[in-house]
Amino acid sequence: MTTKKLGIQTAALANPPTLAAWANVVGKKEGEGPLRSTFDYIDTDDTFGEATWEKSESAMQKQALGLALNKAGQAASNLDWLFAGDLLNQCIGSSYAARGQQVPFLGLYGACSTMGEGLALASMTLDGGFGEWAGVVVSSHFCTAERQYRTPLEYGGQRTPTAQWTVTGSGAVILAREGEGPYITHVTVGKIVDKGITDTNNMGAAMAPAACDTIAAHFQDTGRKPSDYDLIVTGDLGTLGSELLLELLRRDGIQLSNHTDCGALIFDLKKQDVHCGGSGCGCCASVLTGHLLGGIKAGKWQTILFCPTGALHSPTSAFQGESVPGICHAIAISRKK
Amino acid sequence: MTTKKLGIQTAALANPPTLAAWANVVGKKEGEGPLRSTFDYIDTDDTFGEATWEKSESAMQKQALGLALNKAGQAASNLDWLFAGDLLNQCIGSSYAARGQQVPFLGLYGACSTMGEGLALASMTLDGGFGEWAGVVVSSHFCTAERQYRTPLEYGGQRTPTAQWTVTGSGAVILAREGEGPYITHVTVGKIVDKGITDTNNMGAAMAPAACDTIAAHFQDTGRKPSDYDLIVTGDLGTLGSELLLELLRRDGIQLSNHTDCGALIFDLKKQDVHCGGSGCGCCASVLTGHLLGGIKAGKWQTILFCPTGALHSPTSAFQGESVPGICHAIAISRKK
Repeated sequence: MTTKKLGIQTAALANPPTLAAWANVVGKKEGEGPLRSTFDYIDTDDTFGEATWEKSESAMQKQALGLALNKAGQAASNLDWLFAGDLLNQCIGSSYAARGQQVPFLGLYGACSTMGEGLALASMTLDGGFGEWAGVVVSSHFCTAERQYRTPLEYGGQRTPTAQWTVTGSGAVILAREGEGPYITHVTVGKIVDKGITDTNNMGAAMAPAACDTIAAHFQDTGRKPSDYDLIVTGDLGTLGSELLLELLRRDGIQLSNHTDCGALIFDLKKQDVHCGGSGCGCCASVLTGHLLGGIKAGKWQTILFCPTGALHSPTSAFQGESVPGICHAIAISRKK
Repeated sequence: MTTKKLGIQTAALANPPTLAAWANVVGKKEGEGPLRSTFDYIDTDDTFGEATWEKSESAMQKQALGLALNKAGQAASNLDWLFAGDLLNQCIGSSYAARGQQVPFLGLYGACSTMGEGLALASMTLDGGFGEWAGVVVSSHFCTAERQYRTPLEYGGQRTPTAQWTVTGSGAVILAREGEGPYITHVTVGKIVDKGITDTNNMGAAMAPAACDTIAAHFQDTGRKPSDYDLIVTGDLGTLGSELLLELLRRDGIQLSNHTDCGALIFDLKKQDVHCGGSGCGCCASVLTGHLLGGIKAGKWQTILFCPTGALHSPTSAFQGESVPGICHAIAISRKK
């Protein structure tokens, strides 16, 4: 068998898996934003009926997966593999959501890039001939992230101008080996890139070099160019990180005129007081599973390059003076094969 | 193409990838144990030359991967994919170890089962036709785990009789699409199983039901029986968890006479004061990459079923009264195809 690897970082899927169904679930603030009509469920108080924020996040993730499975007409037990991840210590958002579901489970940690990592692994697994159905689900919750990464909500900490707002949301995708599309045709898996940013309130700057690295690698590996995509969408660089990405790509000789960022799309940046935009695994996941895949299905776009970004640090690494390593995975999604 | 999925949870590798090279690095206490001659490097003070325990863990993981790559005669940049994980919040042991290495990175969180999850995904990826080389590296460190999961070392907390001792160690495996073996022939990916154990000092009891579930599924899916393996090796059930596993399997009609556990092998349970044995991602990883694969290479065993176990909880989930979900992945390793 010939290799299906292109260049250094890219897998070309010989029999591109279908995105058979998708769903998302978000919190109140996200439901008040410009993408409100693209969400399947908006919770009124972000608790999702649970007594702790961590349990709320698990409930949200379980609900997103359940809704996506319903749309695909499948039971969880029909999934060959479930890939899942979140931002919580030891990824408890995912493991408690999947507990009791009869499905082989593969836990991922890719920070806010996890939806990209999950789509990459799920599509390679199905294209590799292993089973018929795979699920990918990720989540983030503003209230679990604030107390874990920053300060408890009750503290009422001020936010710096470069800060972003962790999205309360979960997105789930059901992939099938055969189907009518949209399809995943290529995945470019990112390297860890660290340019020495130590300001943990400026994640956009920390992740932009990784996004630049992966997007440039994708074009290099595939021989494609920016205009081959209707839209090139990063995960959660926010407004400042997006500017940096475009500048870094320009220096590499790549001009993007079709770039947007899920973190800049999900909130009204003028009215919703989120500074540089949204962030968190749930940010690009809930934008993908509503606005983006909905737009492809409606014929608005034929091909997009979905590039979730992640910052692979922790409060401990920050306290120890470490800089913030970034990563970005690029997933080429096409309406036709 | 026909599916390479067997039953509910098992992937049968059509062209079994080779374990081309492996290496391990451990701490002082592990180096004083019965497996001392099977370790590639034993640190004298567990710092690995670094100023914080978290940086020590990253240095250890980087060293294990480097040693394995040297044995394989490969540079890190020749790896098509690197799968890595650890127990630290946001998996910083792995991301800082892989930072600056020119390799597509896929972060995993499977608690102490992560070596199993990594071998499963790496072997499916290579067998699926994606590239020629993949690396898997995982780690745990007693000092990072104690302060994160339990109490700072300075506190000098007493340990309960059912407690286990987190191994300071890292194991790395380099897989190749073609080679002379040993081979990974089957992987059985575990479901999350939670029987309601809430004692976080009794991980063996929390994980034994997951090990039972996966081992039974492996036999069901493949049609194999215990005697098809020279050795069935769980990850870190320890002595108590191992007893529970054998009892649970007996109730399912499965008798194991060839079972052992990495947590019971790595320390001298009579002399080293580790109560029920070793634990942590580094436990089964350092036993696999020394004692087990060394034994296969030497012809001591022809086939083993390597079954790393993990407890997918966190201190937060414990404080919130949650029970401990377990998982186990089974990897069939054979000297011949």
